[in-house]
Amino acid sequence: MRIRDPIHGTIDVSGEEKAVIDSRYYQRLRHVRQLGFGDLAFPGATHTRHAHSLGAMHVASRVFQAVAARSHLPEDVRARFSAAVRLAVLCHDLGHMPLSHASERIAPSRASLRLPAWLDAVAEGEQATHEDFTAKLLLDSSLTPIIEEHYDSLGITPAAAVALISGAKPPRAPNFSHAGVDWTPLLRAIVSGELDADRMDYLVRDSFYTGVNYGRYDMDWIVSNLNPAMKDGRAYLALSRAAAFAFEDFLLSRYHMFISVYYHHTSVNFDYMLRRYYEESPGEFEIPSDPEAFLFCDDVALWYTLRRSKNPWAQRIASRQGFKLLAQFTERDVGYDLDVLRSALVTGGFEHFAVESRGVLSKYFAEGSGGPSLFIIDASTGRLTEVARYTPLYQRYSGAVRLSRLYVRPDQIEDARNLMARLLGQAVQS
Amino acid sequence: MRIRDPIHGTIDVSGEEKAVIDSRYYQRLRHVRQLGFGDLAFPGATHTRHAHSLGAMHVASRVFQAVAARSHLPEDVRARFSAAVRLAVLCHDLGHMPLSHASERIAPSRASLRLPAWLDAVAEGEQATHEDFTAKLLLDSSLTPIIEEHYDSLGITPAAAVALISGAKPPRAPNFSHAGVDWTPLLRAIVSGELDADRMDYLVRDSFYTGVNYGRYDMDWIVSNLNPAMKDGRAYLALSRAAAFAFEDFLLSRYHMFISVYYHHTSVNFDYMLRRYYEESPGEFEIPSDPEAFLFCDDVALWYTLRRSKNPWAQRIASRQGFKLLAQFTERDVGYDLDVLRSALVTGGFEHFAVESRGVLSKYFAEGSGGPSLFIIDASTGRLTEVARYTPLYQRYSGAVRLSRLYVRPDQIEDARNLMARLLGQAVQS
Amino acid sequence: MRIRDPIHGTIDVSGEEKAVIDSRYYQRLRHVRQLGFGDLAFPGATHTRHAHSLGAMHVASRVFQAVAARSHLPEDVRARFSAAVRLAVLCHDLGHMPLSHASERIAPSRASLRLPAWLDAVAEGEQATHEDFTAKLLLDSSLTPIIEEHYDSLGITPAAAVALISGAKPPRAPNFSHAGVDWTPLLRAIVSGELDADRMDYLVRDSFYTGVNYGRYDMDWIVSNLNPAMKDGRAYLALSRAAAFAFEDFLLSRYHMFISVYYHHTSVNFDYMLRRYYEESPGEFEIPSDPEAFLFCDDVALWYTLRRSKNPWAQRIASRQGFKLLAQFTERDVGYDLDVLRSALVTGGFEHFAVESRGVLSKYFAEGSGGPSLFIIDASTGRLTEVARYTPLYQRYSGAVRLSRLYVRPDQIEDARNLMARLLGQAVQS
Amino acid sequence: MRIRDPIHGTIDVSGEEKAVIDSRYYQRLRHVRQLGFGDLAFPGATHTRHAHSLGAMHVASRVFQAVAARSHLPEDVRARFSAAVRLAVLCHDLGHMPLSHASERIAPSRASLRLPAWLDAVAEGEQATHEDFTAKLLLDSSLTPIIEEHYDSLGITPAAAVALISGAKPPRAPNFSHAGVDWTPLLRAIVSGELDADRMDYLVRDSFYTGVNYGRYDMDWIVSNLNPAMKDGRAYLALSRAAAFAFEDFLLSRYHMFISVYYHHTSVNFDYMLRRYYEESPGEFEIPSDPEAFLFCDDVALWYTLRRSKNPWAQRIASRQGFKLLAQFTERDVGYDLDVLRSALVTGGFEHFAVESRGVLSKYFAEGSGGPSLFIIDASTGRLTEVARYTPLYQRYSGAVRLSRLYVRPDQIEDARNLMARLLGQAVQS
Repeated sequence: MRIRDPIHGTIDVSGEEKAVIDSRYYQRLRHVRQLGFGDLAFPGATHTRHAHSLGAMHVASRVFQAVAARSHLPEDVRARFSAAVRLAVLCHDLGHMPLSHASERIAPSRASLRLPAWLDAVAEGEQATHEDFTAKLLLDSSLTPIIEEHYDSLGITPAAAVALISGAKPPRAPNFSHAGVDWTPLLRAIVSGELDADRMDYLVRDSFYTGVNYGRYDMDWIVSNLNPAMKDGRAYLALSRAAAFAFEDFLLSRYHMFISVYYHHTSVNFDYMLRRYYEESPGEFEIPSDPEAFLFCDDVALWYTLRRSKNPWAQRIASRQGFKLLAQFTERDVGYDLDVLRSALVTGGFEHFAVESRGVLSKYFAEGSGGPSLFIIDASTGRLTEVARYTPLYQRYSGAVRLSRLYVRPDQIEDARNLMARLLGQAVQS
Repeated sequence: MRIRDPIHGTIDVSGEEKAVIDSRYYQRLRHVRQLGFGDLAFPGATHTRHAHSLGAMHVASRVFQAVAARSHLPEDVRARFSAAVRLAVLCHDLGHMPLSHASERIAPSRASLRLPAWLDAVAEGEQATHEDFTAKLLLDSSLTPIIEEHYDSLGITPAAAVALISGAKPPRAPNFSHAGVDWTPLLRAIVSGELDADRMDYLVRDSFYTGVNYGRYDMDWIVSNLNPAMKDGRAYLALSRAAAFAFEDFLLSRYHMFISVYYHHTSVNFDYMLRRYYEESPGEFEIPSDPEAFLFCDDVALWYTLRRSKNPWAQRIASRQGFKLLAQFTERDVGYDLDVLRSALVTGGFEHFAVESRGVLSKYFAEGSGGPSLFIIDASTGRLTEVARYTPLYQRYSGAVRLSRLYVRPDQIEDARNLMARLLGQAVQS
Repeated sequence: MRIRDPIHGTIDVSGEEKAVIDSRYYQRLRHVRQLGFGDLAFPGATHTRHAHSLGAMHVASRVFQAVAARSHLPEDVRARFSAAVRLAVLCHDLGHMPLSHASERIAPSRASLRLPAWLDAVAEGEQATHEDFTAKLLLDSSLTPIIEEHYDSLGITPAAAVALISGAKPPRAPNFSHAGVDWTPLLRAIVSGELDADRMDYLVRDSFYTGVNYGRYDMDWIVSNLNPAMKDGRAYLALSRAAAFAFEDFLLSRYHMFISVYYHHTSVNFDYMLRRYYEESPGEFEIPSDPEAFLFCDDVALWYTLRRSKNPWAQRIASRQGFKLLAQFTERDVGYDLDVLRSALVTGGFEHFAVESRGVLSKYFAEGSGGPSLFIIDASTGRLTEVARYTPLYQRYSGAVRLSRLYVRPDQIEDARNLMARLLGQAVQS
Repeated sequence: MRIRDPIHGTIDVSGEEKAVIDSRYYQRLRHVRQLGFGDLAFPGATHTRHAHSLGAMHVASRVFQAVAARSHLPEDVRARFSAAVRLAVLCHDLGHMPLSHASERIAPSRASLRLPAWLDAVAEGEQATHEDFTAKLLLDSSLTPIIEEHYDSLGITPAAAVALISGAKPPRAPNFSHAGVDWTPLLRAIVSGELDADRMDYLVRDSFYTGVNYGRYDMDWIVSNLNPAMKDGRAYLALSRAAAFAFEDFLLSRYHMFISVYYHHTSVNFDYMLRRYYEESPGEFEIPSDPEAFLFCDDVALWYTLRRSKNPWAQRIASRQGFKLLAQFTERDVGYDLDVLRSALVTGGFEHFAVESRGVLSKYFAEGSGGPSLFIIDASTGRLTEVARYTPLYQRYSGAVRLSRLYVRPDQIEDARNLMARLLGQAVQS
């Protein structure tokens, strides 16, 4: 099967993959928008995790083929590794909840999913995350036998896909070794790492759909400079020195996308209001732990519920009448002090809320076991350097985003602006 | 206000327009996808009429400004004409029903909308169309006072917008004259005509989101070659001879988009199934004639209803398990005969359906009153030629699309293919 | 080696190809602009045959790989066929003369090139064409041993490349057979045919560099729908029915590019003046038949010569002061009559010239031996139809371009315009 | 007149501008490639200063119009300011010498140009720069009366254009004041400053033509966030806080373009060889100080001269057979020591050369008089901050580029690589 994609052109899909894509679990992603409330700020950004996951699978193949072309892997091993990576990337977002990460706050307990014990090693808390749901759907839903039926002859199990996605190690670990070298670190780096297919697709895709340029980077050049690097009997993903600058550009693209798109003040606004709705009207909308029920837990269901709710935050969201942005600033904006502004608002009787968006851009920065997910390789000498040590930008931009916002009830915005102008005017004069 | 758009970059929005856009009627369009079921065929094509209408408004301005720059209209008249055209284009899709034109089949009677009598002249039948709903929302909903409040000082009424959209003439016709010349034909040509802002936006937009190239044409060149042409005291839209080829390319883009996208076999498939659902389960989903109720009559509501329906067609749609395409052909495909194939399927006991997609690409071709919506102008002589007479392609492609498809129940597709191969093999040999 | 290209991204180049590209013959193409005088009309269009030929080679690979993936050709045969096609496409423009096809008028006699007799079958006349020069450089220059050295182990000779480019049959014909099937027609169709790599690259490239949209077509879709079709022991290039519309779009792209770019009135103007220079100052600039001398026969040499010439046409070209366009028209422009206009200009004492641009867009239309270069294939039945019979657009657009222009000496243009307006005014009234 | 441009679409040109563009001085730029030897590395990058200057003029208008729309300048003042800025930008590159900045090394003395004394204030040395030649052509060539004739009625003189380009103050300074505010700083910032039209065009253009993504930034967003800021009776260019991140992206685009394109090892290689040619064969090619002679001092003339030279460096350039890159590194590449490598090459008898590319990316960083060319403005408070103080990236990237390269004679490259591998291997072990 071939699927037309505005980013990558024609995406080829194998018979096995078609079976997964045609499943209701994958089709559910048609109704989970990639950017949650992002289309409220960027009307063009209505793209879904369905299309993103297809695109990421395509990118994963491009990366793997580029790497494999510089290896001595025989054809049949390549085919199997490739199929495993593609499956993992295709399925990596299956467990995403409706509209926004805010919905993770009402996720059921991780225990209720009854995941196998070997996944406990990568658990992040007591509440189920979208990664937990992804694992659940792969390992214990009506999707499971579909994968088993189609991937058995390739020696790929649902657990292998979960292992590549999560980094956890199932009891009978999937065998990704050849000629004494374990390729797991490299395959995993393609699925989830500093330069993984997920990020490589979403930066370009989000940029394309929002109309914001920042997400563009030089995918061609990066892909054509990726290599397998052997170290202590394991294969790692390594970027040629000649593409180090392209990688820096990729890092900065991500940084700018966070500031401009992912942390856009409108998304932050509605995320916050959704959180308030969940807090104030518990039980109106729920994330079911049962896979069959989860099938219809998507944006459609959430919008439908919000519309019928009596909760004022839900009504604000449903009618798209958020609070108004009063001020936004970073640490570089002299004269802005969140505490001072807030107490003035309290004193003045303004209904308002403040949100701080701060993010660790790279969860891989201080990664523990398994080693770094990306090396820089010097072609002349074969020397490997961890990317975090090679690129000064890396450290600088791996945790740097921090944005403060104040929002005020719409009918109070003019008065609040006047108040703020007085306050800031004072700040300037002093 | 400025809105970021992936097609046009930054779209400027005036204060009046912001009031309309912020209304719940306009916001409703966020949940009406532009291509209905089109994203089932093209996963990237999740764009909405919300974004399209903003884009079309932007294009309308570009066209009007290009034309006005070659006129002697004074600044204040320009501003008023521009605001009127922009408002009309912004609102032209407000009445679209959920998901597809198929939903128009269950629209209420036109009478139930209680539209003013002057609109009867452009009525197309007894059942309300989306144009009727657009008129209703503009003339008689809570949106009406919003427009009145913001546009009164510009001398623009809701009825004026409806007049530009529909071509009907309200009792107190809006005055679009200046210095003895009536600019109505030109303004109307921008809102709805052979080369209107609607088409100019949707071709590029649909092309962009589907990833299909056909919709690209030379918008810059066309816009910069548009002129006002005076004839019998009226101003018409006229394209310089130098851009006649660009216009042909535009026509062909549209033709290819119909074949490749708008009549894609998957869209046609689901449209047909939706129609069957509406026929078999009347009343489950309804299009309300009350504007307030219409506010939540969108894709969300329809998807939600389909999921909960017991109707087998609804279930097929909700689980995206359509019938399978057995054959598609045009008149140029020798050996295919729809009647022969169908009777063989009936005899063989195959559950199936056939759909013929045929379209009159240009409703303006045999236009009656008001004259043609586009002329070709010869700069040397000022001579005007109706575009339909100038461009041979026009006649050829104005009504030419016709595609036949046969769909079969999924479990029968293999047998049906074998049957067809036998039949066609015979056809070839004979 | 990898080369960065703005159209195709990264172009991979093998060691053999690098040797050819590094040769002075290939490097010469850096100074032969693809569109001759085209950059006078489109300032961005400074691209060269050097870049185009690399791009065409890349496209050829994409096409061949798509086709081969649907064949049973073993890996080593694929590699050899691919290398042959790539070499032929890479070299197909080596013999192009400076700036424009106008330079072919001063080419030496074909006899002076002393080409082997087997090429006589494809000779077009007594004067050498750029195809003859290409054959000369491949078969009898210092490039010849470079190709022999690098391609010998692949069983590919310079004569094989010439055979694929020209369609002629060398005495010891290159063996492009496998398992009893002769793949020559298919390989040749990729090098030179209705849908060859040359056209597939130049349409997109010329479109990209001129900023004109017409040359865009759906390359991805076409490539992914190309198949090998076996008939009478020979393999042909065949396009799936599903991409027939994409092919029509390709045809029309070409048609519009001819009208808008290749026959742009400025290019036609300077081409004509260059022809006049060649006629009036024979011998000032010559096309040498000796390959070594041909190495420096490029745009640089011609511009340098033009600047130093005393010939008035050369001076006009060198200072870019062409005649002025007075009128251009096609058969659809009522009231224009070339003969009438010309005799009025003669009578009025206007220095002027007229050029008619007419082209047979498809030289393959009435192709004799060897069969058609492209079939449409019906996947259900395997039936093949010649593209010329399948697509009505084909016949319509294969020979249709005809544009008439009149140019006048710059200082006379105002008077000439007045004269013409009077004449055309009369034409309109009568 | 309208000119088609692949970057900006349609560029409008006024009658006055057409006169300048049609002059032989402007047409000369058709034969001065924007990137010098850059097309040797990026075959697509054959674009010229002719097209760039048109594009920059177009960008200048977009910037000025955006700024003017937020001012109270009356229409006639706007028209005059706009025409002045456009003229200055259009002409800013007229004095560029053939192929590369390397040619500036053989420029005649500044004294030989006999420039007016008021330009001495911005002189950079005793040798004429391309800025000096630009001033010469504007002030004292056959172009001068053309400008005077067409711009006199607008109150714009050649000296005014030179003033905007160079920052120097002519005796009768052009009056760019209105209502007591001097707009010179703002106009000059558009012509030459941190965010000038020159950079805004060339980044996108060079990116487009090389096929390298780095040069893309968010032009739309930046333009729509530019404002006039009044301070001490002068108008400055100021960017809204909301676009500060877009400006950072612009800065980094420039940084990455320097590293990837402008300092590409191939360009550096041929620049160096050209310099050697100039040193070893002085007088073979000269930059004439006479404007008429300068007209034919372009890439064509230089290539022609190089081909006929006996100098070995010229021959290397003409046959495009440069030295081979042995190593390239930055300060972050541990183990590389230029001195150690060079002395090993000397000892081993390798013919080689080393080039260090280092650049001050921003000449405006430590700007003296006239104030900064760009402010960040806080819309709430009107507060202005110099961009250099607002953006931490600014300081970091304003002077940071430094790349070291070693090149070796082609026949020695294998041995040199072996030598280097041994040396670096030692470096790694120690």
